[in-house]
Amino acid sequence: MAYLNDNYLKLKSGYLFPEIARRVNAFCQANAEAAKRLIRCGIGDVTEPLPQAVIKAMHKAIDEMAQRETFRGYGPEQGYEFLRKEIAKNDYRDHGIEVADDEIFVSDGSKCDCGNILDVFGHENRIGVMDPVYPVYVDTNVMAGHTGAANDSGSYSGLVYLPCTPENGFVPDVPNEKLDLVYLCYPNNPTGAIATREQLRRWVDYAIKNRSVILYDAAYEAYISDPGIPHSIYEIPGARECAIEFRSFSKNGGFTGVRCAFTVVPKSLNASTTEGKWTSVHPLWQRRMSTKFNGVSYPVQRGAEALYTTQGKEQVRELIRHYMGNAQVLRKGAKAAGLNVHGGVNAPYIWAQTPPGIGSWQAFDRILNEANVVITPGAGFGSKGEGFFRISAFNSRANAEEVARRLQALKW
Amino acid sequence: MAYLNDNYLKLKSGYLFPEIARRVNAFCQANAEAAKRLIRCGIGDVTEPLPQAVIKAMHKAIDEMAQRETFRGYGPEQGYEFLRKEIAKNDYRDHGIEVADDEIFVSDGSKCDCGNILDVFGHENRIGVMDPVYPVYVDTNVMAGHTGAANDSGSYSGLVYLPCTPENGFVPDVPNEKLDLVYLCYPNNPTGAIATREQLRRWVDYAIKNRSVILYDAAYEAYISDPGIPHSIYEIPGARECAIEFRSFSKNGGFTGVRCAFTVVPKSLNASTTEGKWTSVHPLWQRRMSTKFNGVSYPVQRGAEALYTTQGKEQVRELIRHYMGNAQVLRKGAKAAGLNVHGGVNAPYIWAQTPPGIGSWQAFDRILNEANVVITPGAGFGSKGEGFFRISAFNSRANAEEVARRLQALKW
Repeated sequence: MAYLNDNYLKLKSGYLFPEIARRVNAFCQANAEAAKRLIRCGIGDVTEPLPQAVIKAMHKAIDEMAQRETFRGYGPEQGYEFLRKEIAKNDYRDHGIEVADDEIFVSDGSKCDCGNILDVFGHENRIGVMDPVYPVYVDTNVMAGHTGAANDSGSYSGLVYLPCTPENGFVPDVPNEKLDLVYLCYPNNPTGAIATREQLRRWVDYAIKNRSVILYDAAYEAYISDPGIPHSIYEIPGARECAIEFRSFSKNGGFTGVRCAFTVVPKSLNASTTEGKWTSVHPLWQRRMSTKFNGVSYPVQRGAEALYTTQGKEQVRELIRHYMGNAQVLRKGAKAAGLNVHGGVNAPYIWAQTPPGIGSWQAFDRILNEANVVITPGAGFGSKGEGFFRISAFNSRANAEEVARRLQALKW
Repeated sequence: MAYLNDNYLKLKSGYLFPEIARRVNAFCQANAEAAKRLIRCGIGDVTEPLPQAVIKAMHKAIDEMAQRETFRGYGPEQGYEFLRKEIAKNDYRDHGIEVADDEIFVSDGSKCDCGNILDVFGHENRIGVMDPVYPVYVDTNVMAGHTGAANDSGSYSGLVYLPCTPENGFVPDVPNEKLDLVYLCYPNNPTGAIATREQLRRWVDYAIKNRSVILYDAAYEAYISDPGIPHSIYEIPGARECAIEFRSFSKNGGFTGVRCAFTVVPKSLNASTTEGKWTSVHPLWQRRMSTKFNGVSYPVQRGAEALYTTQGKEQVRELIRHYMGNAQVLRKGAKAAGLNVHGGVNAPYIWAQTPPGIGSWQAFDRILNEANVVITPGAGFGSKGEGFFRISAFNSRANAEEVARRLQALKW
């Protein structure tokens, strides 16, 4: 008799964004007129077209696929050298950060990588996550059997939650207890918080002391405007011995529908075998990618490569300027509406406090029904997200301005 | 202290194809002249350009991504409805097979799906694989901790190997013991064997009786020329209750570098919880895809959709005719060289017996060194692959003819 992976049955309701989609669809079906003026600031999905440099490169790659002489079949599972070397050079070595080309693993998404990375780690690790948290870190641990059941606020036993609150500026300090794997995400989704060099240094020192591994999600690094804030965990001395970094082309190049990301696994990063042998993680991840993945679509990798051209870089900067202009408009609007507002300065997310006595799903429903705007309820990101909601700055300027107006018009 | 997944350390040397690549690179570096006349019939990678219908559709999709009005960000993780419905209709319902659109899960590759499917099954299953076998089925089970160590011939304790030999026509009958999960692959990689309706019926009956799940890999179904041979496991009554089917656009549409495949999980397929509750697998796979995957690149899905147009279908048939023409040439050549030859009639692989006393890696090295042709050593597919090698028909006609000549010239 075939057995299921029971751990899936521990998962609370739907994954956050499908649940939002469900409520939005129900609203639209019940309110055909209001549905027409709906503005989506929920899921962090880009809205602006792909950079022209990408369009051009992808067309060219597709034409190559039409000729026998230039056709490409299976590529290297870890990504084409042409892309790995641009990444390692432009995102790391040009900033004085040591990362080798073959420490870059090109993938079809950071969500996939953040989930799949657990494949190469054991089941005996004590795991820490920020709260609120990007749900994928938690759900993939549940699915892997690393937790018990969830309580009413959606927190799972067996995970260590690091509270992110206004009091600590949404940046948790290192805990007193020992964690083996810690997920950190800066600029943070959902709070929009960033970690200073000193805060990251404390985490790297902690990880080295405890032989922990930091899983560092830097998907939003392109949105950092403050020149003092690290873009990569590897800016911190020692991080090559204790951190894996996830990055994505989704939010800088607008690749959410094109699908390309990468993960950095330094060869100097070790973890322990059951018998206590200190062993490099890199060959395991290499093997995982060779065995369970077949590389990213060739035209997509050419598109990603184009983001590193002079033109591509300028077009990305233009996109970031656009979205961060929206963030400014939304921050101002939410403040003018009397809300306490965080984030939105070095990240495309505004993290707003709900008015007293209003829960975050309640706020979601009211903003949907009364302002016809979709936001993301903070509680969907964890217990410490209750009392907050996230507004995404991914939109047209006109929509951002309209959302700012509607938020101000809303009577709580 | 962070712990690794020790199971990775049980894996024997490299995954087969990287190991072949390593030997070929070493040969090429040592023999610059011979390297120029190298012909690759190793990895089953297509060589002919993408169908024009696909090229056109992908260009169009990329142009859509260049305009705000038609730009697409995140798509549904399970695939766009436009593609799921074409698959369900053309590959199943038009052939009288019941498969609903939402039982189709579009992915970036069958290799990924075959590996990832283990996520939704428990660790207590007794697992059967054919021998020889596509290494991904075995390696992903090793990585998931479902096996012990490997013996000298590369077989892992804890797995049940079903021998595929000339005696049983490379189609194993159902075993006497109970298996919970069984991987079947027809047309078979590597042997090129196909299963008759009656043989599949015995497996479906076995699975229903034992409440097993069949993981049916039909990546090569487009190569079936015999009209009596089933293309889908769902042609067998009862299969919707006991089988998951994997299919790919890699080998019909030439998508090995473009990346698109799909998996069928019928809603009527159940497996047991630890407590013995019979539960549908579909919602678990749906959750797995939502949480650990972000959908296939939009232009790629449009390319796949184009394979179902009248033009696309004709262009696929043309590709299949081309590769199967090669298979005929290679079969004839290998026979004329005095080898015992199997496969190559309903599959793009020829499965040749090595001359007496010559091991399959030995044959690999000699064919590489003396004929400058890359084949795949049978032993790389499992212990029962020893004494065989696989010749891939994915090539130009001129190369196939040249390989046939060189095989005949080879003195064993």
